[in-house]
This record gives sequence, structure tokens and C-alpha cells, in this order.
Amino acid sequence: MKGRQMNLYMSGPKTQDEEVLHEECGVFGIYDLDGGSVAQSIYYGLLALQHRGQESCGIAVTDTAGPNKVYSKKEMGLVNEAFTRSDLKAMEQGNLGVGHVRYSTAGNSTRENAQPLVINYYKGTMAMAHNGNLINTPQLRKMLAKNGAIFQTTIDSEIIAYMIARERAELPTVEDAVAAAMRKMQGAYSLVIMSPRKLIGCRDPYGFRPLVIGRRGNAWVLASETCALDTIGAVYVRDVEPGEIVTINQKGEISSDKSMCIPKERQARCIFEYIYFARPDSYLEQVSVYRSRLTAGRILFEDSPVEADLVVGVPESGNAAAQGFALASGIPYGTAFVKNSYIGRTFIKPSQSTRESSVHVKLNALKEAVAGKRIIMIDDSIVRGTTSGQIVKMLRDAGATEVHVRISSPPFLHPCYFGTDVPSEDQLIAHNRSVDEICRLIGADSLAFLKEERLIELSEGLPICKACFNGSYPIKPPEEDIRGEFEK
Amino acid sequence: MKGRQMNLYMSGPKTQDEEVLHEECGVFGIYDLDGGSVAQSIYYGLLALQHRGQESCGIAVTDTAGPNKVYSKKEMGLVNEAFTRSDLKAMEQGNLGVGHVRYSTAGNSTRENAQPLVINYYKGTMAMAHNGNLINTPQLRKMLAKNGAIFQTTIDSEIIAYMIARERAELPTVEDAVAAAMRKMQGAYSLVIMSPRKLIGCRDPYGFRPLVIGRRGNAWVLASETCALDTIGAVYVRDVEPGEIVTINQKGEISSDKSMCIPKERQARCIFEYIYFARPDSYLEQVSVYRSRLTAGRILFEDSPVEADLVVGVPESGNAAAQGFALASGIPYGTAFVKNSYIGRTFIKPSQSTRESSVHVKLNALKEAVAGKRIIMIDDSIVRGTTSGQIVKMLRDAGATEVHVRISSPPFLHPCYFGTDVPSEDQLIAHNRSVDEICRLIGADSLAFLKEERLIELSEGLPICKACFNGSYPIKPPEEDIRGEFEK
Amino acid sequence: MKGRQMNLYMSGPKTQDEEVLHEECGVFGIYDLDGGSVAQSIYYGLLALQHRGQESCGIAVTDTAGPNKVYSKKEMGLVNEAFTRSDLKAMEQGNLGVGHVRYSTAGNSTRENAQPLVINYYKGTMAMAHNGNLINTPQLRKMLAKNGAIFQTTIDSEIIAYMIARERAELPTVEDAVAAAMRKMQGAYSLVIMSPRKLIGCRDPYGFRPLVIGRRGNAWVLASETCALDTIGAVYVRDVEPGEIVTINQKGEISSDKSMCIPKERQARCIFEYIYFARPDSYLEQVSVYRSRLTAGRILFEDSPVEADLVVGVPESGNAAAQGFALASGIPYGTAFVKNSYIGRTFIKPSQSTRESSVHVKLNALKEAVAGKRIIMIDDSIVRGTTSGQIVKMLRDAGATEVHVRISSPPFLHPCYFGTDVPSEDQLIAHNRSVDEICRLIGADSLAFLKEERLIELSEGLPICKACFNGSYPIKPPEEDIRGEFEK
Amino acid sequence: MKGRQMNLYMSGPKTQDEEVLHEECGVFGIYDLDGGSVAQSIYYGLLALQHRGQESCGIAVTDTAGPNKVYSKKEMGLVNEAFTRSDLKAMEQGNLGVGHVRYSTAGNSTRENAQPLVINYYKGTMAMAHNGNLINTPQLRKMLAKNGAIFQTTIDSEIIAYMIARERAELPTVEDAVAAAMRKMQGAYSLVIMSPRKLIGCRDPYGFRPLVIGRRGNAWVLASETCALDTIGAVYVRDVEPGEIVTINQKGEISSDKSMCIPKERQARCIFEYIYFARPDSYLEQVSVYRSRLTAGRILFEDSPVEADLVVGVPESGNAAAQGFALASGIPYGTAFVKNSYIGRTFIKPSQSTRESSVHVKLNALKEAVAGKRIIMIDDSIVRGTTSGQIVKMLRDAGATEVHVRISSPPFLHPCYFGTDVPSEDQLIAHNRSVDEICRLIGADSLAFLKEERLIELSEGLPICKACFNGSYPIKPPEEDIRGEFEK
Repeated sequence: MKGRQMNLYMSGPKTQDEEVLHEECGVFGIYDLDGGSVAQSIYYGLLALQHRGQESCGIAVTDTAGPNKVYSKKEMGLVNEAFTRSDLKAMEQGNLGVGHVRYSTAGNSTRENAQPLVINYYKGTMAMAHNGNLINTPQLRKMLAKNGAIFQTTIDSEIIAYMIARERAELPTVEDAVAAAMRKMQGAYSLVIMSPRKLIGCRDPYGFRPLVIGRRGNAWVLASETCALDTIGAVYVRDVEPGEIVTINQKGEISSDKSMCIPKERQARCIFEYIYFARPDSYLEQVSVYRSRLTAGRILFEDSPVEADLVVGVPESGNAAAQGFALASGIPYGTAFVKNSYIGRTFIKPSQSTRESSVHVKLNALKEAVAGKRIIMIDDSIVRGTTSGQIVKMLRDAGATEVHVRISSPPFLHPCYFGTDVPSEDQLIAHNRSVDEICRLIGADSLAFLKEERLIELSEGLPICKACFNGSYPIKPPEEDIRGEFEK
Repeated sequence: MKGRQMNLYMSGPKTQDEEVLHEECGVFGIYDLDGGSVAQSIYYGLLALQHRGQESCGIAVTDTAGPNKVYSKKEMGLVNEAFTRSDLKAMEQGNLGVGHVRYSTAGNSTRENAQPLVINYYKGTMAMAHNGNLINTPQLRKMLAKNGAIFQTTIDSEIIAYMIARERAELPTVEDAVAAAMRKMQGAYSLVIMSPRKLIGCRDPYGFRPLVIGRRGNAWVLASETCALDTIGAVYVRDVEPGEIVTINQKGEISSDKSMCIPKERQARCIFEYIYFARPDSYLEQVSVYRSRLTAGRILFEDSPVEADLVVGVPESGNAAAQGFALASGIPYGTAFVKNSYIGRTFIKPSQSTRESSVHVKLNALKEAVAGKRIIMIDDSIVRGTTSGQIVKMLRDAGATEVHVRISSPPFLHPCYFGTDVPSEDQLIAHNRSVDEICRLIGADSLAFLKEERLIELSEGLPICKACFNGSYPIKPPEEDIRGEFEK
Repeated sequence: MKGRQMNLYMSGPKTQDEEVLHEECGVFGIYDLDGGSVAQSIYYGLLALQHRGQESCGIAVTDTAGPNKVYSKKEMGLVNEAFTRSDLKAMEQGNLGVGHVRYSTAGNSTRENAQPLVINYYKGTMAMAHNGNLINTPQLRKMLAKNGAIFQTTIDSEIIAYMIARERAELPTVEDAVAAAMRKMQGAYSLVIMSPRKLIGCRDPYGFRPLVIGRRGNAWVLASETCALDTIGAVYVRDVEPGEIVTINQKGEISSDKSMCIPKERQARCIFEYIYFARPDSYLEQVSVYRSRLTAGRILFEDSPVEADLVVGVPESGNAAAQGFALASGIPYGTAFVKNSYIGRTFIKPSQSTRESSVHVKLNALKEAVAGKRIIMIDDSIVRGTTSGQIVKMLRDAGATEVHVRISSPPFLHPCYFGTDVPSEDQLIAHNRSVDEICRLIGADSLAFLKEERLIELSEGLPICKACFNGSYPIKPPEEDIRGEFEK
Repeated sequence: MKGRQMNLYMSGPKTQDEEVLHEECGVFGIYDLDGGSVAQSIYYGLLALQHRGQESCGIAVTDTAGPNKVYSKKEMGLVNEAFTRSDLKAMEQGNLGVGHVRYSTAGNSTRENAQPLVINYYKGTMAMAHNGNLINTPQLRKMLAKNGAIFQTTIDSEIIAYMIARERAELPTVEDAVAAAMRKMQGAYSLVIMSPRKLIGCRDPYGFRPLVIGRRGNAWVLASETCALDTIGAVYVRDVEPGEIVTINQKGEISSDKSMCIPKERQARCIFEYIYFARPDSYLEQVSVYRSRLTAGRILFEDSPVEADLVVGVPESGNAAAQGFALASGIPYGTAFVKNSYIGRTFIKPSQSTRESSVHVKLNALKEAVAGKRIIMIDDSIVRGTTSGQIVKMLRDAGATEVHVRISSPPFLHPCYFGTDVPSEDQLIAHNRSVDEICRLIGADSLAFLKEERLIELSEGLPICKACFNGSYPIKPPEEDIRGEFEK
């Protein structure tokens, strides 16, 4: 055992919400060739991507025409808590910048680990924002360390930065260095990189995580999702392709390096981006996330119909699929729950001894809508199952005569190594349990999951990763669970 | 005009959201006769009432069996920001307590003005939480001041406390003093009062603001809305009647004083509690708020039908009426907007010069759902109208071919003096404008409001106040706008 | 008295420093007749008075020419922590104002209890800052409460404000009301009062606490000590006399009401102002505090001489008397201790189990100065005695061959009811102990106190209160210890 | 060098106090071989070293017996502001640790640049605290960057860490790697390093900055000054010699590597450690700092005597030399100033337009002591001279009839590159000015500096650096001023 570093505030950083999967990150980059200030646009872009990560956030900008200083700020918490008007004011010189929102799947939840990572290296300054998880981190880290690297964080991005910095010494351009680094990196990554006078975006060859290109006037934009383009008034140009490196230079020219691309059939987009992670108003590779969820609802109806009086979604993520089910079945769509919209990530959880429960603090059933009715309740997934049971009971207590649960994804059976915090197998309710057993556990009258073979319809044919359902990983996963390994 | 007091932080306390009406307060009280700790229950009760006020909050508790000390904390901000676990820990002795969430319609938005107001007087300590607005504040204040009263806040509650304290000197019980004070108070008030060993609740004779009674085991609960009962696992007992004073004593006996009640036909519940303020899962005097909004949607369809492909609500408040319209019309209900749920009350508003807009930061249209469709868009009210226009445009930009707006209340024409911040007449879009003119202003294809004569259906026959629509005030309003007068 | 109010943060507010007496307050007032801004001057005045109270502070200002609004801010903590540049900016309209620094001897240490107290009453707004302790508080409070008063704090100042407000209803001017209130108040008080367009200062008839008048150009200043005048560049005019009320009106006229003055021989200045509380650069009634302490040192030499090599003071308060002893004796004065000047009021105290001690964190003996020498160590007082013992030991550990302790005040034997937190008798080291016993307890080679009969030399003949030494109280003290009674 | 990194909060981080020189850092390390917790001792050690740096501070600890995790916390501000009881609690597992207090002379004043620097490298984790300034930073940084290093801070320590990490790959022990790195480093450095199970301390060959070894029971201690040993109850063992590397291993064995030592006559201790930086109760290489200052006072009397009535020091740093002058001359030592001890590093500076001045807020002359007297005023140095002028005037305003200024160091004429922020030449009052001219500028009756040739008496013969006085640098300084170069 060698030495490992741990931050003081590590103890208990992450309040693991039992039934919610977390995406790890959202990234944003913008380069205004007219020299306009970009800090505000990054701020609004990050607000739009906040659903992809709520633990920490950061912005780094530079002025490509002036002295090319980098101004950056990173903080724990939400974007609108972390940045003040004077922060944005202090960054208003910058016409090139990147931003990041983070939920940590690898690396501790600390300020040190917040992104963008801003570094100085041989060729100047670089700021990088990363969405995804590398799976050969230990090997890369060991290799770098042998050559004298020192690490001050526990995030993959630091390793990526090293890789690029080392390659850059030998290669003519930073984008070449990125390409060379990509050849050594394995796993999921969508990156936006600000080098002194270039904005670079790239996606891993499998395309696990999304990355889109937009444009607003003479400004180029990179973002995890199109909803961030909408917010800042940019128009969608195209998606960065899996394996592609896109570079926008100081003249506003955009160039592309596809040398790392692999055959389309080997690509492996995370299907959960469509099912749950992305915002419904986003389009990922031109597939509407909302449409994808309507489709999931329709499929659930086609494969697992049931007579009922009302179709409801578990808010917010189940609503679109519920609408799809309602449209397909003709059963009315309705609202069965009121969600407390003022409770953020943090509130004081009821203790065991009190008569209150976390679920009741967040949700309340709408008796008026539910009483005396047979309900079809749609949710996007079941992870551990405890919350599902409580919600089913809530509906029954509100007078529902039947509760039929439909899940718009197959059962989770395997951990994810590519940027989603699906827990280890023994914590998954579907592990070693039949659908009937799960149905009994959560107290539903019937239960059905979306069938694995129909998932491809959600991405409208784009090749996807289904490893968390069937264990067939696009890249051989590491022997042991390396997530967070470095800190343990 | 003599001296007036102003707090340092007065300047710019309230970010007046252009198109949103604000309720002023939510109140909560609980008395556990078994001596159980109540601070946590108040905390969860206030979380459930947070929609009634997001500026400041407070909790005060006492232990009726022990030394009867009062522990209290008041802060600016949301309940889950203001209270820490150790705050609740420090209050865990208390088995009797009251809580408050506030949006200021009278009195500045400052910590000093947060509630509950905790005072010492001749008979011990009293804590009070108040929802509503008195309209004879200047007269009462003058009368009290003449007798040597000093004022340290600018809230009505301080005046009410004085009134009760003065009456108490002559009268045998605190509830008698409350009754005597009520005889002198004019306006809207739902109060919960913690006296050393009693919990008291009362409503003004008109019943402007709600107040319900609940029970959990051997604990009595008072709350603005039933949703707070649900959250803490209490059952609904009944509503406090307009004009009634309800007292729970140390033996757990509940007594009622109805001497201040007026004939039912003169009662004047605020209809906006049903239309907008209350949470849809609440029942006010046994009328479901959700059902009331479905009814509003149905009425809009009956009175102002239109052919269309989709009925949508402006989130969140328009959704229930939209569902009512959809059910009545057979036109499918759908979702047309994605609301950014991570943006709280405060984010940095785009400046004029930037290309972003506040509305786009908060809302995005769901192109996929809207494109090529004729849309009926339901909202609860139009105040100034600017936001409505932006939302209609957002739908058109997303491809809607027609946008028909239906509003589940009549046009605002008159200010409210009873606890709602309807602005003065010249700021109201409906002032001196026909419906057609408004329709043109907001860019809709058609526009209809709910008719005043049908409002009574929303309260299912309970007498209501419609003054903001027709100017017919249940009590003669003050000659000049006294709201905030004291601080100006 | 049944109900009592207690603030959440009461538990453990005051870290009672074992061996240090605390003054309760400093007050400051300024009226710029030319209309100049006074907030900055109050800020610097309070910085100069910070030694009189470090728990909380506050400033209130008004503009006598303009709309006469009051701007105020009160916070826990030191003046330079509590006020920001933008706070002062927000108050820059004010040309009349008062300020306060507080150490709580009565009333809890909470934000609610910070001063100045700003109130509205029949005749407008009043802000008041108070130094001292009333001793008939319970009777006054009861009397007021019977007439319907409500109390929101636990400080005497609220009672004084009530008294003035009530009298004002019957009397032509606010200064008359102050005079009438003074007739009913018993105890120690130096007050500065800002009424809408007047600045008023008064001292109780015994003159327990100081109050001086200064002038800077066309601005009048009131302050607890002359050092505050020096800081803001004002010149000393005269002291407010015991029992006098001084009023500065809008024309800049200063008037005086001496109707409450008592015969000079009954006056009773707190002698500890000279011995310890006041800053050495201050003059109280034209007696230099520094000179007074030099005198104390000389008297100690005259009455209790001893052969030694070095005279040292316990920093900071013992240094001046040590210089006086050195000058009188011819024994060299030196420095024996280094005090850590970066440790504020709060640092993490060593736990019992660790090898560090609080005294060693704050002080270190200067071995080089002390080793091999016979030391005379001068301190201003001994309260509980534990720290004295540790310091004597510290000198011996540093190589002192003899340690002779001289104390520039007589032994404490009785509690103080007039604004100093001398603890109750059983906690005083001198209670039931001879000087020899104390000497042995603290491990000194010899010990002598300043003789009670010579105290009058320190005030250069001005009548003083010596009750804490001889129990002869100028006013009959309350039967029981009322300090903090209201909160308990 | 193109790109440079700048932190958001760079703008205006450092409030450069006009007349005060700043030391850059204090370091502390402790290794308890019995496994006892060290976090509290580091905390108290840093409190004792706080005078060496008040901008930021940090602690890192590890448990050598257990899992060897590193817990660390770094914050802006003072030690007693930055660390809470629960911080220390969270670190209580550690029995080996290092701490740091910082005033930035190189590297921006930001949280990122706070120390100790905690890094992971090939051989585990290392934490390092550094006092001093390298002068070949640009060359080293360039060399490292060429080999692929990335930099996340702008502090020298990051470069040192890299150097050690790179050497460690080839060498058997970490202390060997430290030695190899030292061979390449030029400049001033006293380092304490925590490697997984070793505590290492080293000083540069010239011995610019101090470092002492102490012991408490079975715990070894390293600290910048002996005063930190006193505070935690440790005994002084010896100083780390210039050029020496001292290693304490897991068995408690201490070893020494003196291969980097240079001939004693080439050593170059910073004489300002004796004159100003170090605490008077510290011993540096067994020379008492207090004694050194007494000596300075005596020399000033010997070389520049003057008739006067009183010798006073400018607090605090001038006091010891003033005592030395008094003892030598027989002229009484006294106190002429009262310093406001509640004003920390930050208070709101008076604006030009106000009548207050910063000097008067911090200091007040003691009229009583000064009036009518001829004063000798001793200060440790004059940098820009403006404050000196104000203080001389303050004495005259207080009635001093003559003011003779004596400075316990020679005039500053050259910048320092070794860890002191002596400003550039054109800002120095002595630049191009005779002593007479300076005397006139500050308004003194006479002025004398300590002669350069007598400085060696202050270090009692230990070789010293006098470059800031005579420009004779022990190492050739860089061509241009590199201080802060990287950030500019």
C-alpha cells in the first residue's frame, strides 16, 4: 500500500440518494471570435446543464486578443449559489472559456476536485472540462508517476491534462497532442479544452457521453446538450461524432480530426442519457429526448398493457414516458403527485425515530386525482427499490384501488464504469430476483420493465451501450471496481 | 411626517418577479401533549408551506412541562437553508411551538421583520405567526404609540401582540385577550399563537386566509394548509372557521370561541388560494384545490372553447387547469415546457445587453411536443403581461401554428389589501384594456379569462372575495395605499 | 414570572475568560451640523472604543435635513469584522448617528440584544446606545408590562426606551422625557440618544460610567472616552457631568439640564475605569488614565517595596503601573512576556488531555530577560487567581529567582451591580482568604495589593465607587443577583 | 511564455502595508512516534508562528501506523479563523504532520497557493511546507515543463515537489531525492516534508531562513522558531544547520545529511530575522532575538547618542531596541503610544476625503507620557518613510519638544530575492537620499541608522546576508525581478 491522499472534508461528502442515478458532469465551451465577453453565456449554459451535476461547478475564461490571462473560479454547490455578479464581472474580459458542472463518480467531492482544471504547461495555459470516466486510470497514473508526475487532485482530468502536456512537447499542435493522448485513454470522455487561443472538443470513440456544436453569431459553442444552446440563444450546428476532435482556432475556422473514430456499429452511446439523464428538451444526435421517452411509454403499453383509469409519472423523470403510455393506450394522463420544489439537494432528513419520512417531505399524493382509481405509475428505473415501495404505498393510502408499475428501462444488473453511478450488484433490487419478486417487494399489483431488445428504438437506431442491463461491456472493464480507488 | 426607521438592507430587498403573484405567509403550530419534541415537525411543516413565502422563516418552541423557556431562530431565506441540524437539536426540548414562512407584503424584507415574533409581556412569553394584512394598522399603531408603545419592527404582528398584551392585563385568559384584540383589528389574519402553555389559532371573520386543525396521536396541529398535515403524518380534523378562536390547553382540551363570527354570506375567502396560492394537494374547508383547478379548466372549455391539438399548462401553476380543460374537451393534455428546477429565487438576471433572457433561462419550449400543433396554453393569471407575451412567442418559435391562451381567473383590475401583492392599477395589463387588446399585446391567437360569475364554482359555493376583479371590497379599504407605508 | 424568552444561540454564548474583568459597553454619538456624513467617523470611534466591548456592535444614522430615515446595522463580533465598506456606503446620507460596542453583563449575548436599539414611537424614531446596568430593572419592567408593554429583547435599553417614550407623551421635548425617565431609573448609565433631529447624552447621577463631549469643526461628538475623540480628529470640550443631560439641537446649540445632579460627595465613579477598563491614552474628567496607573505603581512601591532586579507588567494592563513602580523605585522596567497578538477572542482551547495550555498559547516568558533575576510582576487585579498562578510559574520556569507580585487594586470581595462582571463572592480568590494565603496559592514570593484608602489618589480626588472592595454600595443593591435574571 | 494563469480573486489580494516588511512563511512539522495525535500541536505551533505569515494557513497529517491516509485543510486567513474544532477532530488520527502559515512574496495570494502542498507521486503521498524563495524558478519550471510537467499553482513549492518526485524515481530514499533536488535549487528555503512515514527538514546552504529541532517526549518537532516549541511544551534540541537535511524515520531515529553544506563563512542568514521578523522570545541558532535587539539599542546609543528625557519604541517591533538604548544610556524607557489591539489586518481605511487617518486609527500618542519631553523614538526600519513622518508628527502634536529617531538597521537600498518583500529601489526612501534628507522628510530633530559594519554583532558573529543594505548578494540575483513573474 502506498500513500494516498484524502481531503479533510471527504468524510460524508456525498449524500447518496437512494433511488436516483447520477450523471457525473456537464461541460460547456464558447469562443466568441468577435471578442465579446463569454462569462455570462457560460453561466447560463451551466444553469441549463445543472441537471447533469450539482456538487460543484466552475468557469475559466481567457482573452485571446489581450494578455491571454486565465480567470477561473470553482466552488462547491449549484451554479447560482457559486457565482456572484462580481465574479462574472471579474471575468468579463474573456472571449474564450469553458465551464463545468459536476457530480463525482470518480474523485472525491471536494473543492480541489472541481473543474475546469486549469494548468500551466510548456505551451502556456490550458483549461479542461471533462464528462465521463476513464477505466485505465490506474495504469496511466502509474506510467505518469514513474516519469515524475505529481498529482494534486484525484480526478481523471488531471491525468488527461498530463497526457496532453507530454504529447504536446513532441507534436506541432495542441489538437495533435489531444489525439495522441486519446490513443492511450480508455473509457468514457467528452472533453472541452481551452488552450490559449483555441477551443477544442472531443468525444471518446464509443460516444458514451454527448457533445454538441452550436453557433451564435460569430461565436462557436460546445455543450453536453442542446438545451444549453437554447438557453443562450445559439443554434444547433451538429454533434461532435464519437471519436472526433473538433478544433476552433483564432480565425474562427473549425477543423475536425476523425482519425480516432471506430466503425459505427462499435459505438456505444449511454442509453440512459435518453431514458433519464438528459433534459427532455435536448436533442442528442438529432434524437429528441422527449420523443425517446414518449416512445418508451408506447413500448411499455405495447408490451405490457393493463386496464386502468389513469396513467401517472413519478415526477419529474417519469412524466414523459407516462404521456407516451397515455397517448398509446387512450387511458387519461394525469398528475398523481405534488413535488416540493423548494427542497434542494440538502434538507435535514427525518431521523428513524420521527414520524416523518423523506419521501413524504418531497412528494405528496394528490388524493383528489387518485382516490378510487386504478393507476398505472411510470418510472424511469428502479435501483434499490425502497423508494418505489414507499411511493406505491403512498398511492394506495391516497385511495388508489390498483397500482401497476411500468419502468421505462430494463432491470439494472451490472455496474457502470463509464460515468454513471449504478451501484454494485448486491445493492440492486433486480440482482438475483425475478420481476415477480420485485413486484411483491414494492407492493405493486403488476410490474413490467422495458425489454432490453427494444432499447434501440429509444435511440432510433443509434448504437448504444446496454452493459448495465446485460453485462456486455463495450470495453473490457477493469478487474476490480476502480471507481474512487485512488482515494480509498 | 416624523421619523421613520429603515434598515440598512432595505434598499432593494425584494426582487419583484414580474408576472408572479405572491402570497405573504404560511403559519404552523403544534402542541404535543405527550411532551414529544416538536421542532422537527415544525421544520417539515414549514417545508410543506414554503410555497407561501420564501423570503424568511422562523421557528419558536417552548417546553410546557419544564422551565418554559422559549427557543427561537429566524433567518432570511428558505427553510432548508436557514435551519441546521444543530438548530433543531438546540430546540429539541420544546413540545409546543409555532413556525412561519414569509413573503413580505407589509413590512420590509429584513431579518428584524421575520416571524414568529417572540415577546415578553406581563403574563410571560408569547410567540406569534401571522398570515394576512391588517388595514387599520396606522390607526392602531397611532393609538398604541399614544399610550407609550415603542415599535422595533414594521410588521403588523407587533401591533397585534401589543393589542393582546394590553387586553390581557384586564382579562382572565389569553384567549379572551385575543378575542378582545380581534374586535379592534380590521383586515386579513390567520394567526397561530404560542402562549406559555396554550396553542391558539384564529382567523379573521371574513376568512380571507385559511387555517386548518390536524391531529397526530396526542399532538394538536394548526397549519395554513392540509399539505403540511400530510407531510408530518397528521390527520385533518377540521378548519378553523372564519372569526373563530381555537385554544388548546395543557390538558389537551380544545375550546372554541365563535363570538367574532359573522354571517356566512359576509365571509370572503381569497379565491386566489384556490386558483394559485395553495398547493394542489391541499383541501381548504374541504374543497380540494386540485379539484378546484380542474373545474376552472372545465369552465374555460365550456365558456371559451377552441379547436386545437394540445392543451398545455404554464408550469407549474397552469397544469391542473390545463388537465381540466383537456378532460372536458377531449383534446390531449401535454407538456410544452421544461422548467429549470435548479434555479431558485436568485440567479443573476441577464443584462439588457446580453442575448440571453430570464424567461429562457427558466423555461424552454419542448419543440418536439409543440411543433406543427395548435396549442391551448392555460395560465392562472396575467398581471403585467410581459412574461405571457414571451411565453407565447416561445411556443411559436418552437413551431406552434396557433396559440390560444386561457386564463383560469378574471382580469385583475384592483389592488388587494388583504395579503396579496396585486400591484397598483396602472401596472395591471387589464387596466383600461379590452381582452382583445391584451390578446394582441401578448401575441396570442385568442384569449379568454374565466368569468367572474363562475368563480364561486371554484370554491364550491363558499363565499369568496372577488375585490381584485370587481373592486367590491368586503371591508372598506384604506383611503391610500398603506402597504409598506410605515417604512417609506 | 413564568414565561421567559431565550434565544437559540444562548447556550454557551460567552466564553468567560477566567482572569479578566469585562467592561460592558462603549458608546459614541456624533452630529454634523454642516450635514457631513458621520458613518465613517462612528466606525473609527467604535474601533477606538473596542476595548470596552467585543461581543457585538452597531451603528444607526439619520439625515436631519432630508427624509430623516434611520439606517442601522447591528452584528455580533468586532467592529472591523461587522462592517463592510458597502455598509458604510449605505449609511453615508446620515449626518447624525450613534454607535455602540457591547460586552453583555445584562441581557444575553445575541444579535437581538445588540445595540443601538432603534425604535419607533409616538414622536418618531429614536436610537439609543447604553453603557451601564440598571438595578431596578425588574420593578420597571413589571410596571411597564402592567401597562401593556411587550419586550423583544432582554436589555435594559429597551426599558429605558419605554420610559422615555411614555414620558414623551406628556412632555414638550425629548430631553424633558429623558429627565423624567432618569428620575425613575436606578443604577449605572451613560446614554447617547439620537432623536430625529437631536443628539442627547446623559450620565447617571453617580457618574459610574464616563461620557465626554468633543467637537470637530461644526460637528459635536459624544463618546465614552477621549481616545475616540483623538481617533477621529476631534478636540475634547468637557465631560458630561454626573446627572447631567446634554442636548445638541438642529441649530448646533448645546443645552444642559443638571436637575438630576446630586452633591458631588455622593458621586461614585467606577475606579476600575482608571485601573483597567479605559484606554491609557484617555482622560476621564481630565484625569489621565495613564497617569493614574503610574500613580498606582508608585503607591505600590511606597506601601509595599521589595528589592528586585526588574519590574515587569502582565501585558497589557499591568505595564503602566509597572512603569510607575520602576520610576518610583529606580529598579529597571522591562518586558518579561511576549503576547501573541494574533489570537483574538476565539481560538480552540487546549483540551485537558493535551500537553498545551491556554496561557502558554497566549503568553510566553522572555527567558533572556528574566533568567537569573528577581522579578516584581505588576498586574491590575486578581479575580479567581488561577491565571496568576500560571504566570508566576512561567516566570520561575524561565529562570526568575524570585517573583514578587504587586496588584494595582485592592482585593475583590463583593460583586458589582453597576456594569462590571465581577463574579459572585465564592468565586473570588480573596473571599475568605488572607493575602498570605493568596500569595501561597499563586506561588509568589511576596504579594501586596493597593490599599483601599489610597484608591482616591488614582482619581485625583474625584469621588469614586469602591463597593467591590468594601461592600459599601452607593445605591442599595437588589436583594438578589439580578444580572441576567430575565433570561434565566 | 505565452499563457498565464490568474485566479479570479487575484485582483487586489494583498493590502500592502506601506511601512511594514513581511516575512513570507512559517513552517512546522511533528512526528509522534508513540502514535499520539498531532493536529492540535500543529495548530498551536502555527498560532505561535502566525507573525511569520497571516494570509493563509494549512495543516496536513497522516497516520503512519494505520492506512496512511492524508488529511489536509488549507484556508485563507489566520489560523484561529481557518480551523474549527471539528477540523482538528477530523484530523485526529494523524501522528505525523506538517503545517504552514503564509505571506506571499512569490505566488499569488489565493487559496490554491496556500500550503502545505499535498501531492501524490510514484512513491505515495508527500506534504510539504516551504519558507523562502527560489531564484532559479523560471529555469527549473522551464526544464520541468519541457518534460511534460503541468502546474496548478504559482508557488515554488510545486516546483520543489516535482524535483523531488523526479529524483525519487532513481534514488533509494526520499531524503536522497531531497538532496538531489537541493543540488539544483538556488535560493532561500527551509522545508519541512511529510513523506508517508518520515518527517524531513532541510535548510538551504546559506541558511537564509531558520529551522529548529525540538522534542516532546517521544515526538520530534521541526519549527521555524523556538517560540513554537515553547507553546507546545517541547524542548529545544538544536538548529538544522545551513545545508543540512534531517530525517526522522518510523523508528524515531534521526539522521543527518550534510553533503550540501558549504563553508561557514559563505553562510548568509537573513539579519532581519533578528531585527524584525522573529518573535523576541525565539532563539535562532542559540542567539536570543530579544538579546539581539537589546544589543541593537545599545549600539545605537554608542554610535548615535543624544540627550533626551525618554526612550520609546514604535510598537511592537521597536520596543526591545528602545529598552536596550535605555539600559545603555540611563535615559528612562517609557511608552509613548497606545496601539489598538483589536484592529486586525483588515479594517476599512479612511478615504482621502475624510478627516481620519489610518495611522491614528492604529496608534495614538500618550500625551501624558510625552508632553514637554525630549523623545528618542526607536524603530526597526524605514521602508518608504511616510508612516515614520506621521508618527513623528503625532509625538510633536502630543507635546514632545524634540523627536530623535534611531533605526535599528541600516537604510534599505536594494531589493531582497530571498523571501522578504523589500520593494524595488525607487520606492525606498533611502534610495538616492542622504540620512539628513530623510531626517528632514520625516520631520525628526535627528536621525541615525545602525551601521552596516555592526550588524554582525546582532547575530553574535554568525555569518549573515546584508544584501538589502549593501547589494552584495550571496548568490547572483536574477537579471530581472522574478518575484511574482509567473502570474503577471
